[in-house]
Amino acid sequence: MLVVALDPPFGPSGEYSVYDIVEETCEVAYGYKVGLPLVLEQGLKVVSEIKSTCKGRVIVDFKLADIGDILVNVAEKISRYRADAVIAHGFIGLRDSIDKLVEAASRYKLDVILVASMSHRGSEEFIDKHFEELVNLSLDLGVHGVVVPANKPGLIRRARQIAGNNLRIYSPGIGVQGAEVGSALCAGADYEIIGRYITRSPKPGEKAREVFEKQVESVRKCQS
Amino acid sequence: MLVVALDPPFGPSGEYSVYDIVEETCEVAYGYKVGLPLVLEQGLKVVSEIKSTCKGRVIVDFKLADIGDILVNVAEKISRYRADAVIAHGFIGLRDSIDKLVEAASRYKLDVILVASMSHRGSEEFIDKHFEELVNLSLDLGVHGVVVPANKPGLIRRARQIAGNNLRIYSPGIGVQGAEVGSALCAGADYEIIGRYITRSPKPGEKAREVFEKQVESVRKCQS
Repeated sequence: MLVVALDPPFGPSGEYSVYDIVEETCEVAYGYKVGLPLVLEQGLKVVSEIKSTCKGRVIVDFKLADIGDILVNVAEKISRYRADAVIAHGFIGLRDSIDKLVEAASRYKLDVILVASMSHRGSEEFIDKHFEELVNLSLDLGVHGVVVPANKPGLIRRARQIAGNNLRIYSPGIGVQGAEVGSALCAGADYEIIGRYITRSPKPGEKAREVFEKQVESVRKCQS
Repeated sequence: MLVVALDPPFGPSGEYSVYDIVEETCEVAYGYKVGLPLVLEQGLKVVSEIKSTCKGRVIVDFKLADIGDILVNVAEKISRYRADAVIAHGFIGLRDSIDKLVEAASRYKLDVILVASMSHRGSEEFIDKHFEELVNLSLDLGVHGVVVPANKPGLIRRARQIAGNNLRIYSPGIGVQGAEVGSALCAGADYEIIGRYITRSPKPGEKAREVFEKQVESVRKCQS
């Protein structure tokens, strides 16, 4: 239930490599989220190298929001580097965009995760106005999951109500961005995406284990 | 008024390099648009190498749609490779996202261009419902320009009405995507973004000159 977001730099002052972080956290991480900053620095080969370092899943998070042809091209490229899942914006719309991505992703055995809300304040200006439509779009398409941030537990609960167990819910915005570890899981998320709180720590492995234990404890408490 | 979109492959069956295309079209291209497919293949160094091949402007088009921290990180990286402008989605919202990007971009001397509408059918599902808000957001922020597709000449005219000469209008969707060369310019766009029609041609240089001449002729006709 812990997904570690791998955005550079790593360690309090960049003293670790991404592979140090992956090795140290592998035992407790369900998977890793890799975004543009890391891929622009290291190229897509970082995805397959993470896969070789730890058996966890790798989610490529470019927050894709383009026309179908570009999405298909990117899906093909990341699948060549053994990515397991890709994050795109539901906001871009189904026709000639997300539909094409979903079709290609199924061919490449990539899970698709659509953004339904985000953690920053600007998300309320446009995206959140369409939150239920975006969750329903994801559900209708039968994609793997949605992104709903931890600082909006009401939206996590709503997504769970709408989708039942038919969508995995990924929740960023924990730690440095403000929400408590375990709080999104208690609201109904399947995975908490945690980055800097772990990756910039002087002891990322210890921090990740601490987070994992806190998640387990929170879930035990909130379910009782 | 011609921006060439550099999405691989180049030539009818990939026989050209991106630099072949840039050299052949440099004379008539105002600038080049570089997206994720090319950068994932070649790394960001392709941006500075294009700049060394031709004096035209390079617009990095990742259609950014993320939280401020990630946008700032990406802006910093692309500016290091001498990019002139960056395209982001207006729908991501101002607060803690576009505001941060605009601030960083000004520091890095990068122009910001915001997507206000797109050419694919899915754009009508969410984005186009906020078209005027997105143009007004861009105008209020004083960014360099907006993207409005050529297959929606009514929206180009509307953007020009709203923004006067305070926003540059970039228009994709010409050629392979359906709109006629020159049609977006006649509707009020400043630049037509043309990709495959030129880059997959057996003679990209000739095709680009033909496009440029057709643009000049269209503008002359529609202004008379």
